[in-house]
Amino acid sequence: MKAIVTVGLKPGVLDVQGKAVARALGDLGFAGVEEARVGKVIELDLSGYGDRASAEKQVKDMCEKLLANTVIESYRVEIAS
Amino acid sequence: MKAIVTVGLKPGVLDVQGKAVARALGDLGFAGVEEARVGKVIELDLSGYGDRASAEKQVKDMCEKLLANTVIESYRVEIAS
Repeated sequence: MKAIVTVGLKPGVLDVQGKAVARALGDLGFAGVEEARVGKVIELDLSGYGDRASAEKQVKDMCEKLLANTVIESYRVEIAS
Repeated sequence: MKAIVTVGLKPGVLDVQGKAVARALGDLGFAGVEEARVGKVIELDLSGYGDRASAEKQVKDMCEKLLANTVIESYRVEIAS
């Protein structure tokens, strides 16, 4: 089973990496970029977690404990078969 | 218009960050994690690029020039309305 976790800064948290990307794209001549936000995507190969619901529960637990800094980041979990 | 760019290491390139994540999850007791791969996701707010096809072309150009290191990374572009 495969899980895809997307982690990004919560709204209101200053995204300095995103600002740098937007500015660099502007400097390269891409004038139409109004904003950029940078996050992480983590693909996990899982085995032995039974059905999708219990796999999702486990992956959310991984996010809370390791993959995301929940003070400033939010996460989204998708379970792909 | 919104674009979502996902950047990840090409197959065969050693993903040290992914290996570290997989090992750390194992150390935390998540025994079912066989592999982890870590990539970036970049959300762009665009304006003035006309239709989806020309926006996608521009974003692919941004990937080639800045967002991805195409020697070791591959990218995927999705255009959301």
